[in-house]
Amino acid sequence: MKAPSKTEIEKLLKHAQQPAADAMKLHPFYKGKIEIQPKCCIRDYNDFAIWYTPGVAAPCKDIQANPEKVFEHTNKWNTVAVVSDGTRVLGLGDIGPAAAMPVMEGKALIFKYLGGVDAFPICLDTKDPLEIIKTVKYLEPSFGGINLEDLAQPKCFQILDTLRKEMNIPVWHDDQQGTAAVTLAGLINALKLQRKIMSDVRITMVGAGAANIAIARIIIKAGVTPGNVIMVDTRGTLHKDRTDLKDKFPEKWEFCQTTNRGNLKGDVAEALTDAEVLLALSKPGQDTIKKKWIIQMAKDPIVFVCANPVPEIWPWEAKAAGAAIVATGRSDFPNQVNNSLGFPAIFRGALDVRASTITDGMCIAAAKSLAAYAEKKGISDDYLIPTMEDWQVYSEEAVAVGMQAIKEGVAKLKLTEQELRLRSTAIIKKAYNTTRLLMKEKVIGRPTRT
Amino acid sequence: MKAPSKTEIEKLLKHAQQPAADAMKLHPFYKGKIEIQPKCCIRDYNDFAIWYTPGVAAPCKDIQANPEKVFEHTNKWNTVAVVSDGTRVLGLGDIGPAAAMPVMEGKALIFKYLGGVDAFPICLDTKDPLEIIKTVKYLEPSFGGINLEDLAQPKCFQILDTLRKEMNIPVWHDDQQGTAAVTLAGLINALKLQRKIMSDVRITMVGAGAANIAIARIIIKAGVTPGNVIMVDTRGTLHKDRTDLKDKFPEKWEFCQTTNRGNLKGDVAEALTDAEVLLALSKPGQDTIKKKWIIQMAKDPIVFVCANPVPEIWPWEAKAAGAAIVATGRSDFPNQVNNSLGFPAIFRGALDVRASTITDGMCIAAAKSLAAYAEKKGISDDYLIPTMEDWQVYSEEAVAVGMQAIKEGVAKLKLTEQELRLRSTAIIKKAYNTTRLLMKEKVIGRPTRT
Repeated sequence: MKAPSKTEIEKLLKHAQQPAADAMKLHPFYKGKIEIQPKCCIRDYNDFAIWYTPGVAAPCKDIQANPEKVFEHTNKWNTVAVVSDGTRVLGLGDIGPAAAMPVMEGKALIFKYLGGVDAFPICLDTKDPLEIIKTVKYLEPSFGGINLEDLAQPKCFQILDTLRKEMNIPVWHDDQQGTAAVTLAGLINALKLQRKIMSDVRITMVGAGAANIAIARIIIKAGVTPGNVIMVDTRGTLHKDRTDLKDKFPEKWEFCQTTNRGNLKGDVAEALTDAEVLLALSKPGQDTIKKKWIIQMAKDPIVFVCANPVPEIWPWEAKAAGAAIVATGRSDFPNQVNNSLGFPAIFRGALDVRASTITDGMCIAAAKSLAAYAEKKGISDDYLIPTMEDWQVYSEEAVAVGMQAIKEGVAKLKLTEQELRLRSTAIIKKAYNTTRLLMKEKVIGRPTRT
Repeated sequence: MKAPSKTEIEKLLKHAQQPAADAMKLHPFYKGKIEIQPKCCIRDYNDFAIWYTPGVAAPCKDIQANPEKVFEHTNKWNTVAVVSDGTRVLGLGDIGPAAAMPVMEGKALIFKYLGGVDAFPICLDTKDPLEIIKTVKYLEPSFGGINLEDLAQPKCFQILDTLRKEMNIPVWHDDQQGTAAVTLAGLINALKLQRKIMSDVRITMVGAGAANIAIARIIIKAGVTPGNVIMVDTRGTLHKDRTDLKDKFPEKWEFCQTTNRGNLKGDVAEALTDAEVLLALSKPGQDTIKKKWIIQMAKDPIVFVCANPVPEIWPWEAKAAGAAIVATGRSDFPNQVNNSLGFPAIFRGALDVRASTITDGMCIAAAKSLAAYAEKKGISDDYLIPTMEDWQVYSEEAVAVGMQAIKEGVAKLKLTEQELRLRSTAIIKKAYNTTRLLMKEKVIGRPTRT
């Protein structure tokens, strides 16, 4: 990648602002991105006697007698709550639950279009973690899964961990497991291209927020040697003497004990020296990672700079400093580490086998499936992970997740791989085709091209 | 109406059981009655940069700066929560929140198909009224309205009253205001046919549950003279000496003071003597109201026997005992007092003008609109109120509700009658047509005729 000219940079920046301008026009045009749609036949008005009183009493009584039947008689089996309190929305911080709604609706849109999952935005008007926990538990009868989103740190850990323990349906924090699964997929293929071995590679992680903490946990479970990882937060590397973290950040403190074999003390510059991989999920802005630090890394380093909307260093600068492979969070550069490759299919797989939880093992299975899919299409320095366009990747990923759930004993339905593939493919295709049909028939209007 | 033969009665009873049998086949066939559907264009995958990160940040920031903009940028303006704790579902009693799900999904289906309203079932795993109140308040950012459903008495009053006071969006308990609006519509036309004056008529109400308490309140606001009403609960008439109700049932105690001018003490038999109207919403089963009691009523009485699924007396028996007009809750007899004629359109009207609440005045406007619509089509003893088939009634009713909200100063949007009519018609027709289209295109499959 050549460094772009000044004109090209201006064009890039302008291009980066276009979605915001379009969003301000198109959100009020549609006044919402999802709606409720009947999915059962209404042949005539007599059918309401089946779907509502008096007929509906029969399935109600059936569920009362056999609680598991709620998955047969209602849409619970395919319904996920996208829950946020709006305290850490995108890069915007604590903007509150109402202002978080466009994001949660967008998430629900992606859940359906890519994964066939019926997701509904639940933005809660409380910031108290105990109240959030209690409320989400109260909501359990209506949902088959919970997707936590954009919750501030550190309460996001407490909320996720408690709900995972106390609910009977999968609970997931996309900023943790979701990001970790897709990042791992990219890492697997980057290492493959560089002919490096997962267990040998020296990784420096810049940022110790919810995302990087989850990534560290998952990549270690997937084979990275903990001692080979160095994590850096705003106060420097995590090491055994970072007692400031002991009480306030138990999640970080744990990594102080297990990572950073050499107990290196210092800042990003020191931590990056001789590192083979950089995983930065920290502060947006092109000065967070400096060119000279990349130069100090091992030869042909792998650089993930995933802050949004502006990566920690521009890809061309990282390349100029010697990076062999660069990944970002942006769709306008190669190698987008994109959560949308994860959550729709991972939930699809979990719901299809009625999994009680989504384990790290299921996330790793999803990552490997994503990596394998890209490899089959032919990986290169500019194509580490699939892009969103191909619906088949979601189906394959859902199958991998479902099979892993069965293997780990957390699935209530034991389907064969072939059954799972048929099921997830049918559901995902139906969601895709229905929206295409509604656009073709102009039920979903088309604005003049923005 | 002639008394049916034994064979005809058997046929009637068999017919009454058919919906339950169909429901047990068709609920598992569809596995849910509603789903989430994208309603914005997805021209290609680049559009996700508008609907999700990075573009979505712009509407988020806009809402943060101008909270009211959430009604422009999201689907909140059209979204209603159907909230229940499952403690008083249909005639089934406390079957719990999971078993209540088929009813709440059915309600959501009707909300959309008849009123174009996006309703979502929220079945809560707590029975504590204070917890229910708190939870529903937490949900406010995601919803434009709250429909409470199937909550046990007396907590339903506390929950409704508190939420109405403390929330900024309309809160409605369908078993109260919804039933009352449709009953009033029927009463208006029944009185018209009998050439009786609202303020003169002697009304006996059998059952003093949430529905009849709300009906009493609404019909009195609509012109019935309180002293002309006699209410009867399981212990007899409500009168000034019913001190057993003073602390436990403040809602009933209030009626002890204002209704029953003659302070009549006694049971249903005494209360019905010389009454011109019977409004029974009490225990299902054909022996609750006896033939001989109807005979004791004034000449040509109006008889509403609305318990479900079996009315308090069969219509032909009431007729044989002299009833001029009989209404029930069932679709297989004439004059169905059907909530589905109320809530979809009343919410349509309230949402279209962004009303902060649904007042009794708006319910009365809805009732008058329903009555006027039936009158225009030609009322008779067997056609008091419209049936579900005609979508125009919903639009007219929504307009009446919206205009009343504007008149009472509870509407944020001031539209003209013509604007309101265009808006509600477009939304209701779109909902109807979309489902017809999806059935035609076999996206919604058709089971073999059951």
